[in-house]
Amino acid sequence: MTNHLSKLAIHTITNKPWSTEQCIENYARAGVSGITFWRYSFEGRSPANVGRQAREAGLEVVSVARGGFFPATTAAGLQRAIDENRRAIDETAEVGAPSLVLVCGAVPGQPLQASRQQIQDGIAELLPYASERNVILAIEPLHPMYADDRSAVNTMAQASDICEALNSHPNVSIACDVYHTWWDPDLEREITRAAAFGNFTAFHICDWKTPTTDFLNDRGLMGEGCIDIPSIQQWVADSGFNGHHEVEIFSNRYWSMDQDEYLKSILDSYQKLRGS
Amino acid sequence: MTNHLSKLAIHTITNKPWSTEQCIENYARAGVSGITFWRYSFEGRSPANVGRQAREAGLEVVSVARGGFFPATTAAGLQRAIDENRRAIDETAEVGAPSLVLVCGAVPGQPLQASRQQIQDGIAELLPYASERNVILAIEPLHPMYADDRSAVNTMAQASDICEALNSHPNVSIACDVYHTWWDPDLEREITRAAAFGNFTAFHICDWKTPTTDFLNDRGLMGEGCIDIPSIQQWVADSGFNGHHEVEIFSNRYWSMDQDEYLKSILDSYQKLRGS
Repeated sequence: MTNHLSKLAIHTITNKPWSTEQCIENYARAGVSGITFWRYSFEGRSPANVGRQAREAGLEVVSVARGGFFPATTAAGLQRAIDENRRAIDETAEVGAPSLVLVCGAVPGQPLQASRQQIQDGIAELLPYASERNVILAIEPLHPMYADDRSAVNTMAQASDICEALNSHPNVSIACDVYHTWWDPDLEREITRAAAFGNFTAFHICDWKTPTTDFLNDRGLMGEGCIDIPSIQQWVADSGFNGHHEVEIFSNRYWSMDQDEYLKSILDSYQKLRGS
Repeated sequence: MTNHLSKLAIHTITNKPWSTEQCIENYARAGVSGITFWRYSFEGRSPANVGRQAREAGLEVVSVARGGFFPATTAAGLQRAIDENRRAIDETAEVGAPSLVLVCGAVPGQPLQASRQQIQDGIAELLPYASERNVILAIEPLHPMYADDRSAVNTMAQASDICEALNSHPNVSIACDVYHTWWDPDLEREITRAAAFGNFTAFHICDWKTPTTDFLNDRGLMGEGCIDIPSIQQWVADSGFNGHHEVEIFSNRYWSMDQDEYLKSILDSYQKLRGS
């Protein structure tokens, strides 16, 4: 019998009411195998110590969220983003995670093409720094409803275009979240393309509820919405990806409930997916 | 000096608090040249009479919104959609509009590919009926945030794929709304493609606000948001489209304000676009 949880990771933001230590203890006790840290999880702590605690508890540190937000309308703004990303890369290296997820950014009213160029240029500038620290910069395409101020990179194809423009450098790759990409008619093809060029490094799961009532914090638990997650999991497996399936759920509703009960629901819904 | 309003049309839903007759009178008096009717505008009226009133007031009847919603999980549901679309085609012919805009539909949880096939099959089934009545079925790609329950057709490319699969039949075409398509990295290319195959028949404008607080009814007035409308207008003009620019704004905020003042704002913002 396979261990159904051997590829399950959870982002600390999913259980936002819990402290970093509670996340580590509770995920490990539940049999979850990986953890992803939102950067706030390091506040008042040493990332190196947090990483050690996680590994000692039996958890693999999968990634850190998040860097990015490259676009700006001034040279000073562009530089601030580079500096902030260097700090995020440092924390990623210190905690011992292989990758830093990038929410690439956008400036409302600035042409998307200009923002996209700034994103690519920013990543290019960071690559030597990331490479020295063994950190992969994982571009996460965001749903087009965030194109105004969160990311001008909204499809897997755009993320692959950037990776390939940077010669599929080993320190740039893609984080694919079903919430952002499920609607894309080219999703299967683009997962295959990204993996074929070595540009697929992370896979996030949750669900899209009908109706969705909040642009940011109304994501659903797997199976609760309309996303055909098993099919996407199959495409990802077929592409050769063998990493964690990371649960990342922003939800005012779930954050307000008992987090122990919620963690049980996460495990249940994940296992139902795997069994389907 | 050109008449800046000669290509301006307004959807009646934009001024939802007004009756059909108020829309006709006020648009005509303001110098607007075209009107698009939401189907509720015909309630308790004869579409033929409404069309005559509009033309007598000097307005061109541009289109009718909306048909579509083809996907269903039962044969009876699929048939109901066809029947309802036949009624919408009848009303479009009666009011004297050249086209019926289609919000194509989706069923939460049904694979998108299945919904897309039902959409294409539904349009194919309606084409002879639409052709006899000189009505163009205008597929409107909807923003991906509506892929769960409003439309499984979310890009211009998908809409062109359907038109071309139907041999670019003269009675199927595309309505392009900047609200739904502005984020698309392929937008310019896909406008050109649609027009080149004779598949570009309508152009809708409004704006995307930052932040947007409601999934349906928080659209902005042109210039109020982040969409680069002048560039898109240029692409549309370059493609050879010479039809109306239709203002379609769903907005709880604007619906609650004085509609005469609001109409002045619409004209102002439209003219500022044209002058930019």
